[in-house]
Amino acid sequence: MAKTITKLTGFPEWLPEERMVELELLKQMSAIFELYGFTSIETRAVEPLDRLLQKGESDKEMYLLRRLQAEDEASDSKLGLHFDLTVPFARYVLEHKDKLQFPFKRYQIQKVWRGERPQDGRFREFYQADIDVIGEGELPLFFDAEMPRILYQVLSKLPIPAITLHINNRKIMEGYYRGLGIENPLEVFRLVDKLDKIGEAKVQKLLQEALSMNETTAKKCLDLGRIRTSDLSFVDQVKMLGVKNEILSQGLEDLASVMNDLKDLPKGSIVADLHIARGLDYYTGTVYEGMMKGFENLGAVCSGGRYDNLASEDEKNKLPGVGVSIGLSRILSKLFASNYFEVSRRSPTCVLVALPAVEQLSEAIQLAETLRSRGIAAEVFPEALKYGKQIRYAEKKGIPFVWFLEKNPQGLQAVKDIRSGTQVDADLSKWVPPTEDLKPQIKIKK
Amino acid sequence: MAKTITKLTGFPEWLPEERMVELELLKQMSAIFELYGFTSIETRAVEPLDRLLQKGESDKEMYLLRRLQAEDEASDSKLGLHFDLTVPFARYVLEHKDKLQFPFKRYQIQKVWRGERPQDGRFREFYQADIDVIGEGELPLFFDAEMPRILYQVLSKLPIPAITLHINNRKIMEGYYRGLGIENPLEVFRLVDKLDKIGEAKVQKLLQEALSMNETTAKKCLDLGRIRTSDLSFVDQVKMLGVKNEILSQGLEDLASVMNDLKDLPKGSIVADLHIARGLDYYTGTVYEGMMKGFENLGAVCSGGRYDNLASEDEKNKLPGVGVSIGLSRILSKLFASNYFEVSRRSPTCVLVALPAVEQLSEAIQLAETLRSRGIAAEVFPEALKYGKQIRYAEKKGIPFVWFLEKNPQGLQAVKDIRSGTQVDADLSKWVPPTEDLKPQIKIKK
Repeated sequence: MAKTITKLTGFPEWLPEERMVELELLKQMSAIFELYGFTSIETRAVEPLDRLLQKGESDKEMYLLRRLQAEDEASDSKLGLHFDLTVPFARYVLEHKDKLQFPFKRYQIQKVWRGERPQDGRFREFYQADIDVIGEGELPLFFDAEMPRILYQVLSKLPIPAITLHINNRKIMEGYYRGLGIENPLEVFRLVDKLDKIGEAKVQKLLQEALSMNETTAKKCLDLGRIRTSDLSFVDQVKMLGVKNEILSQGLEDLASVMNDLKDLPKGSIVADLHIARGLDYYTGTVYEGMMKGFENLGAVCSGGRYDNLASEDEKNKLPGVGVSIGLSRILSKLFASNYFEVSRRSPTCVLVALPAVEQLSEAIQLAETLRSRGIAAEVFPEALKYGKQIRYAEKKGIPFVWFLEKNPQGLQAVKDIRSGTQVDADLSKWVPPTEDLKPQIKIKK
Repeated sequence: MAKTITKLTGFPEWLPEERMVELELLKQMSAIFELYGFTSIETRAVEPLDRLLQKGESDKEMYLLRRLQAEDEASDSKLGLHFDLTVPFARYVLEHKDKLQFPFKRYQIQKVWRGERPQDGRFREFYQADIDVIGEGELPLFFDAEMPRILYQVLSKLPIPAITLHINNRKIMEGYYRGLGIENPLEVFRLVDKLDKIGEAKVQKLLQEALSMNETTAKKCLDLGRIRTSDLSFVDQVKMLGVKNEILSQGLEDLASVMNDLKDLPKGSIVADLHIARGLDYYTGTVYEGMMKGFENLGAVCSGGRYDNLASEDEKNKLPGVGVSIGLSRILSKLFASNYFEVSRRSPTCVLVALPAVEQLSEAIQLAETLRSRGIAAEVFPEALKYGKQIRYAEKKGIPFVWFLEKNPQGLQAVKDIRSGTQVDADLSKWVPPTEDLKPQIKIKK
């Protein structure tokens, strides 16, 4: 007999109708990724600890494995569950390099794990849907612009609220801070990145107190972080701040090129936003972050960037990459909680074949097989109970049609639409349900 | 810079073309499961240790989690990665019982983890594809017969070698052994189940030595284990062995009912095989095991059974279930290793749009978008390199068509099939590739 149930916070699980929404979104995403030439891969769930640890800021969030009855503690104790899909992908590319063609474009949709304290929108296990391109030697800036284009295509086609994509280039921040005489720009990234969460006054205070910055310099940092434009005017706005630095110029040029490549996308869907840094240490250029309209307090629902060194073995064998990740579980958990979707039924089944008597079981099974061979999902009621009970089962599951085996004088059987109560004579060789009843339909609630 | 690569045995990873095969099989499986009315669910990767341990024989195979910097060691240290999908499913049903409709039919395709010593066909991480039905109170024997029917439908439609399904009922073994005066039939199950691996002589020796059985009784055990029929004749063969027991009679009746329900399936695809026990303690009736033709030494590639108590809270709230699991990774690893499949190309991309000059990038991108909007996967070559280099990229990736932007006097552009070298004039508003070139095709090598 089973033990009592322990609820685990931070490990979300969906009910069947929620899973239908998730599956449909996964299908639509994958189809679009493939239209852009991205091929699917999956990596193992575990990576050696030293590989996971090369990425900053995340050592506290990791799950390590040990075998319940470990004989070789040494080997197992150095494995951890991956906390994102970028680090494993970079390792995959290195490991299988000779068998891949570059630039290698892949999509990868898997669960990741983080040992974080669970809170609103933050889970210990969740789905990420990633696309990345890794080049051999160099990777054209073309791909830095292709990432937000695909994100826009995917996210605007899914039945979810609109997403605004914010783009920056770390070289702009790095060069600007260096131009101000700051020696460790990474520390400033982390604080300025918090602007949305804690506001300008607190960031300024932190810059002055935690980083011992003078007030003028701290305010100069905020001046850059305030710039947000949906066209190329950010370039002039930065130049007006009067900071000169070569890395800054390069960053402005790169971001201008990316924004220019995207100018055909609807106004406001893409924003150059010079305070976005992203937390991870491995980004070296373009960085992305997407917010869902009406759910901005959820934080970023997609993010990514360019990483020139993550997969590289050494200076001679560079494998620079760029990619984005969609936080599917985060998006869905919020939309499920706010009752955003409506699913037309709970079961894939379109037709329940009612069973009048045990002796007719073979007949019922064959009838169901005929429907299935035509792509109509069907199940046979497993016992010869009263029709009322069989119909109630269909009602509970939301199965729209019940098929009765009895034949009328013309040799036709009856199919009942149990939602309306309408019963029609049906010829098994021809009957098809209305298209909208063939599979469960997902709609957005008004 | 990245560390050197550590290869991890037991954690298989597929190359893109292998993953294409896996994805296609997953899609086909899911579609068939849904035609039979099974709905998709996923469960979290972890379960509390006490729940994982209720299933026998597996405590040595488990991975436990700990957080790298655990503050609350107590809570985390009791979590383990699931080693199958049945135990988590039973827990899911118990946890969400009030929101499910019974009999609840679900399919679940996820990775599972076992801390085993990796060997041929045995992995530490692998895909299982499961279907199960759990009833409330009782579950008709109808479903015990539906499982092998669906397995047959799924496995015979996938592009893999034929599978023979062996079916038994543990009540037959239990009743028969009890009828012989054996008090702990479970111990005999485990030994008789090894018949295929170690042969009759060794099993007999083990029965006599490990279980202190006399020779006559040991031989009687083997007599039952030898019975394999593809029709109902196993019933008479068992009766001729002269053992009388009520549980045995019930088992024979149940298995006869299941075999009778399946009599329309092709001869030889389903076999009543009275030595099959399956290793897991929770099975209480029907058990299944499937072997792949030509790969019998791989062991079972699918298996399952009826479990009347796994999800039940107590005698009053019974949630009996029956299900089967397809070991997809095991099947694929063997077929990949023997070069069984041929994939027509390595990339989803059908058309590469060549880039003649940087200034034409927008034009190239818009052309690709037009193709994509018609369901044709396209990518734009990211740099204005010589056409020879761009065509070589398409060749390496196996992209069949290259589109050139230059227009002829009639305003048509040229599309080259780089496999044949044929170049034709194409009208963007109408052009479609041959159907077989739209997506990568998977074939079985001759």
